[in-house]
Amino acid sequence: MFSDPTDSLSDNFRDRFVIADHDLIYLDGNSLGRLPQATAAHLEKVIQQEWGADLIRSWNKGWFDLPERVGAKLAHLLGAQPDEIIIADSTSVNLFKLVVAALRAQPDRPKIVTDDLNFPSDVYILQGALALLGGEQRLEIVPSPDGIYGPLDGLATAVDAETALLTLSHTVFKSGYTYDLTAVTRSAQAAGALVLWDLSHSAGAVPIDLNGANVDLAVGCTYKYLNGGPGAPAFLYVRRDLQERLRNPISGWMGQHNPFAFGLDYAPAPGLRRFLTGTPPILSLAAVEPGLDIILEAGMAHIRAASVQMTDYLVQAWQRELAPLGFALNSPRDAAERGGHISLGHPEGWRINRALIEQMNVLPDFRRPDNIRLGVNPLYNSLSELETAVARLRKVVVDRLYAQYPLEMTAVT
Amino acid sequence: MFSDPTDSLSDNFRDRFVIADHDLIYLDGNSLGRLPQATAAHLEKVIQQEWGADLIRSWNKGWFDLPERVGAKLAHLLGAQPDEIIIADSTSVNLFKLVVAALRAQPDRPKIVTDDLNFPSDVYILQGALALLGGEQRLEIVPSPDGIYGPLDGLATAVDAETALLTLSHTVFKSGYTYDLTAVTRSAQAAGALVLWDLSHSAGAVPIDLNGANVDLAVGCTYKYLNGGPGAPAFLYVRRDLQERLRNPISGWMGQHNPFAFGLDYAPAPGLRRFLTGTPPILSLAAVEPGLDIILEAGMAHIRAASVQMTDYLVQAWQRELAPLGFALNSPRDAAERGGHISLGHPEGWRINRALIEQMNVLPDFRRPDNIRLGVNPLYNSLSELETAVARLRKVVVDRLYAQYPLEMTAVT
Repeated sequence: MFSDPTDSLSDNFRDRFVIADHDLIYLDGNSLGRLPQATAAHLEKVIQQEWGADLIRSWNKGWFDLPERVGAKLAHLLGAQPDEIIIADSTSVNLFKLVVAALRAQPDRPKIVTDDLNFPSDVYILQGALALLGGEQRLEIVPSPDGIYGPLDGLATAVDAETALLTLSHTVFKSGYTYDLTAVTRSAQAAGALVLWDLSHSAGAVPIDLNGANVDLAVGCTYKYLNGGPGAPAFLYVRRDLQERLRNPISGWMGQHNPFAFGLDYAPAPGLRRFLTGTPPILSLAAVEPGLDIILEAGMAHIRAASVQMTDYLVQAWQRELAPLGFALNSPRDAAERGGHISLGHPEGWRINRALIEQMNVLPDFRRPDNIRLGVNPLYNSLSELETAVARLRKVVVDRLYAQYPLEMTAVT
Repeated sequence: MFSDPTDSLSDNFRDRFVIADHDLIYLDGNSLGRLPQATAAHLEKVIQQEWGADLIRSWNKGWFDLPERVGAKLAHLLGAQPDEIIIADSTSVNLFKLVVAALRAQPDRPKIVTDDLNFPSDVYILQGALALLGGEQRLEIVPSPDGIYGPLDGLATAVDAETALLTLSHTVFKSGYTYDLTAVTRSAQAAGALVLWDLSHSAGAVPIDLNGANVDLAVGCTYKYLNGGPGAPAFLYVRRDLQERLRNPISGWMGQHNPFAFGLDYAPAPGLRRFLTGTPPILSLAAVEPGLDIILEAGMAHIRAASVQMTDYLVQAWQRELAPLGFALNSPRDAAERGGHISLGHPEGWRINRALIEQMNVLPDFRRPDNIRLGVNPLYNSLSELETAVARLRKVVVDRLYAQYPLEMTAVT
């Protein structure tokens, strides 16, 4: 049963990561990926040699180009050209920049469309951008019929000749439902809308071909399946033919065409560099690169095959062992419609999650009201780990180990 | 001559910093401060223990509150209340957030005033924000009479009943001229304007009392005199009584009143946390704290006294030894009007700067067209270092060691 590809991947790659506690079953790489050994070594060099010894000279020895250099590596992973992805700011700030740019480029189209499965921060950013522009443009949030699957029919109806932008999470944060990048992009473009994907929960988990799907715009974070470190700076993608049409509203000096001329009139840099704003956080940015190297070495197709095997195992284990204990499957059954995590609902989900962490050394995460997320990264998770995790989860419920914890409402102060 | 306070400071604190090359005279701490030893040790712990071992659990063990905790420490240094400063994003992004908020709070006042000594990125951000808001609001850039001193009379005239915001660099990046925080703030407020200071070149170099000066708004970076590391996240200050009146236009989940409820309607957090946007870059943010501890231990009054002694020495050395070689003093003569660096102009400035770096192991920086900046940080620079630096600078000019380099225009490709 525990055949290739899963075990060969974790056999080969698990020791590339720092594993401080070998008993811990870490199923939250979809929130914060593990620390690669190479990243720790690289950061030591960046801190001691580049900052400590080389000091300001490091800007000309590679720091200045780091947003583009790491971006080009990520572009290779995501099916984009090297000059179509750059690392900058946070996902939310990048989303703001691209949404405002897309709206200003199409003032005659008054609507943004998204769904209610999108990450709330993305929706907040849309609300803020629309309030700021203060015109006729408005937001339409299409509801999912069941909170699990994307509302494909509703989106097809909502995206019309008035739509400037369709923006969605490619893999949604709660259920793990994953849109068909090509089909949805093509359909919205047929109505004349631009399409912006948030790849935060899919980059590094599922194969992505941005050019193949003719995606217009994308953003995403680097600290989940890409293992870039806590709060590592995010990425943004702008298809090459759109780059010169769009303006960065947060027009800072790193996006200026010649920042060291220190002229007083902003003029955007050619290409994607115009979407930079301020000086990037070099330590957090440098930490992104070694994690990308590992994924490129392992190969996205291998990672995906192993991930599917693992999430399929969890679905089977749910049906056989967990559904009888009151768990609901809050993720799609078909692997083709899923990213790298499985969500299980349970009325006692909050307390079960806490017992798993505190008594069983299994670390998933919890999303209200009742949702336990089990994220798998085949580079360091194995099928045998998942088997143990399922056994521990069963034990928490069968032995009522969660009963000692207060209900969530009393625990939130 | 080399009496207290300068040498006692560097004697006591220089070994708190990583000094890889003891011959190097580093005079660019005004661009990138040196690496504190404690920062290297702290980062090792953050990387290995907090990320590597504790993983996602670290968010609840301190990461989530880090922007406020480090902000409170900086507030202590800058004369603000603990809940008036927060660490977030870059200086440019923070400036954008506060400028847009200030403009939207005063729609009946159509003017922003600044000067032409301001850091160009700040001016770019103002231009971008005004273009975005698209109304009647406009920018007035008051010219300095000489490129060195702030245009006090011109600003007094420009700030009027139509002015929403006066925004200036407290210490200007080129000449080092430093405004009287209290007097300028009071004068602009008398006209009904809000005042926003960029403290990037003064925080950690000159004593600042934000509450004492009744400053409305401020931003600044942490990687110059605060020694927070390359591109470390910036800070923003909003006086307490203004916090609830202002809205963050980049409304992301870290500024949401309850981000883990995952509701779909943005509602700002109370207080300053509303000015957060996305997930902060933890490694770069954590690096800020140990540098602040050193400054608080040394005491800002001691640092300033030593800094004045050192920049006074440079002015005297200029008059005695460098003016005869064709150098102009591009900084104020009176220490009360200066920050922590001295600018020297020379027609061959670009080539002289290059010779200093490549042949003399002195590391200042250069600002076009002819300006060599000598930044001093008394925590690791000493008067004897400055004496050596002046001797090396003289040698470069007297022996024409710069003559082997191409002129700047041919060197820029």
